[in-house]
Amino acid sequence: MNQTIDLAGAVAYLKACDNAIILMHKSPDGDTLGCGHALLAALRTLGKTAKAVCSSPISPRYAYMTDRWFPAPEFEPACYISVDTADRPLLGPEYAETPIDLCLDHHGSNSHYAKRVLCDPSNASCAELIIQIIDGLGVPVDKYIAECLYTGLTSDTGCFRYANTTANSLRVGARLIEVGIDSLSLNNLLFEVKSKPRFELEKLAIATIELTMGGRVAFMTITQDMLEETGIDNGDIEGITAIPRNIDGVEIGITLRQLRNGNYKVSLRTATINAAEIAAKFGGGGHPRASGFECSGSPFDIKVMIVAILEKLLP
Amino acid sequence: MNQTIDLAGAVAYLKACDNAIILMHKSPDGDTLGCGHALLAALRTLGKTAKAVCSSPISPRYAYMTDRWFPAPEFEPACYISVDTADRPLLGPEYAETPIDLCLDHHGSNSHYAKRVLCDPSNASCAELIIQIIDGLGVPVDKYIAECLYTGLTSDTGCFRYANTTANSLRVGARLIEVGIDSLSLNNLLFEVKSKPRFELEKLAIATIELTMGGRVAFMTITQDMLEETGIDNGDIEGITAIPRNIDGVEIGITLRQLRNGNYKVSLRTATINAAEIAAKFGGGGHPRASGFECSGSPFDIKVMIVAILEKLLP
Repeated sequence: MNQTIDLAGAVAYLKACDNAIILMHKSPDGDTLGCGHALLAALRTLGKTAKAVCSSPISPRYAYMTDRWFPAPEFEPACYISVDTADRPLLGPEYAETPIDLCLDHHGSNSHYAKRVLCDPSNASCAELIIQIIDGLGVPVDKYIAECLYTGLTSDTGCFRYANTTANSLRVGARLIEVGIDSLSLNNLLFEVKSKPRFELEKLAIATIELTMGGRVAFMTITQDMLEETGIDNGDIEGITAIPRNIDGVEIGITLRQLRNGNYKVSLRTATINAAEIAAKFGGGGHPRASGFECSGSPFDIKVMIVAILEKLLP
Repeated sequence: MNQTIDLAGAVAYLKACDNAIILMHKSPDGDTLGCGHALLAALRTLGKTAKAVCSSPISPRYAYMTDRWFPAPEFEPACYISVDTADRPLLGPEYAETPIDLCLDHHGSNSHYAKRVLCDPSNASCAELIIQIIDGLGVPVDKYIAECLYTGLTSDTGCFRYANTTANSLRVGARLIEVGIDSLSLNNLLFEVKSKPRFELEKLAIATIELTMGGRVAFMTITQDMLEETGIDNGDIEGITAIPRNIDGVEIGITLRQLRNGNYKVSLRTATINAAEIAAKFGGGGHPRASGFECSGSPFDIKVMIVAILEKLLP
């Protein structure tokens, strides 16, 4: 029985449940953590026994959400609820066989691995779904819940800057700010502050940037030496490929990142040009604004090869 | 007659006016340009003769707002309306004596230099005031007007990230997105893309960053040589002082910027510590999170002097 349910169905299930484990996806981001902890707070407000669990360690930067619930209660779980998790493997190997009673998600790719699934991809963040659930439960959105949901909302929309941001995302943000949260501190924590390894890697990577083809193309190179020297976590590298594209006049920002096997992963980021079509010329693929492929050779040889093809492709 | 008027008063004045010059402040930012052009579009929709004027050149990045109105009509001005301009000198020397009939603003520091003043500092951006004016005029917020107002709104709130962002800012943003503007392209243009000189200056400045006091303090140095080498405009340097503060663990980010006279302007940026109190120890001042002072000496000597005092001040 894997059935799609509506908001009322999810609310009815949650009202009836107890001894609940809320599962957040591994390598947790602000949206899964925010949704898991907001829902936990709502269930606790209703007098239920519950805890929120993640199979990966949670960064201390999210202590404002997690610290409130130590120590977690010990109990015999009666139900499992996943949040912001599109597929079962994302829950971690511990939950490979666990029956998931309810899945609350917003990913269009949701694999319907749970008994009951409420998945609404029109929401930019899962937090936009969870606030409707909490309203349905009749639990007031207090400051803690608002902080959790604001974390989820802004994490998935890049603080209202990404393509997925909708009018509803902004309206939910307005409502959360009106609860009286310190949104400035959250914005700084989530979007302004960089880890020291990330800062060091950006410094090294930026120094390699070269503009070519009259400034329309920018190359940036990240070697294994740089990754080792800075000691950066893989999860902390995300988004660095935006740097070369964001120089005024650059139409294609290209990042060469050396892999452990010595090959290079080449990432293309564009503002208007179809990046997937270009990557296809090199045997890769992707999206219209973000694509990639893998190849071998020295960074210089790879760049020469790319320029030779771009000179034919670009109008 | 310098009188404070209300929204209805401003709307009544605008309904009656014609042959209007809309003045935007010099060194124009997105808010004054967005407000000036949105109001211009509204007055033109009402069949009035009007043009929007700025005493400084307008960056070509704002062509999506300005290009529509070339060539500007020639006419004998019957009234002058300023937008987002707190004081008369900001209009530029050409307007030192011009009687300003109406001032629409949101700066708490507004000097009431106009015959009629509508200034509401509860608005994070002047655009939040202008949309009320346009509603009052009965002009529909079309895609062009929405693009102008979105530019103003996001420019002054850092795309909904700065301390001044309110629930109303987000609600106005929601309404503008619903008009169908390409908010992603505007976000990229206004917040992601850096000019080549800015990019080069950041690269040079980041290379000078030094952490001290166990990583709690970060220094960054910008010399006149760097400013000359990159050829950066003064207006393009804004916000660079945020860089050292945004390294994880840094409590005080300090930027030394060499002035033409050889002295250094020292900018302090903090997350929680009172920056104004620290600057006061050096004869400077400012706000709780952003302060500064000026001093002479080599960058090394200045840093040593600052550290000596911070070691006594920091808990």
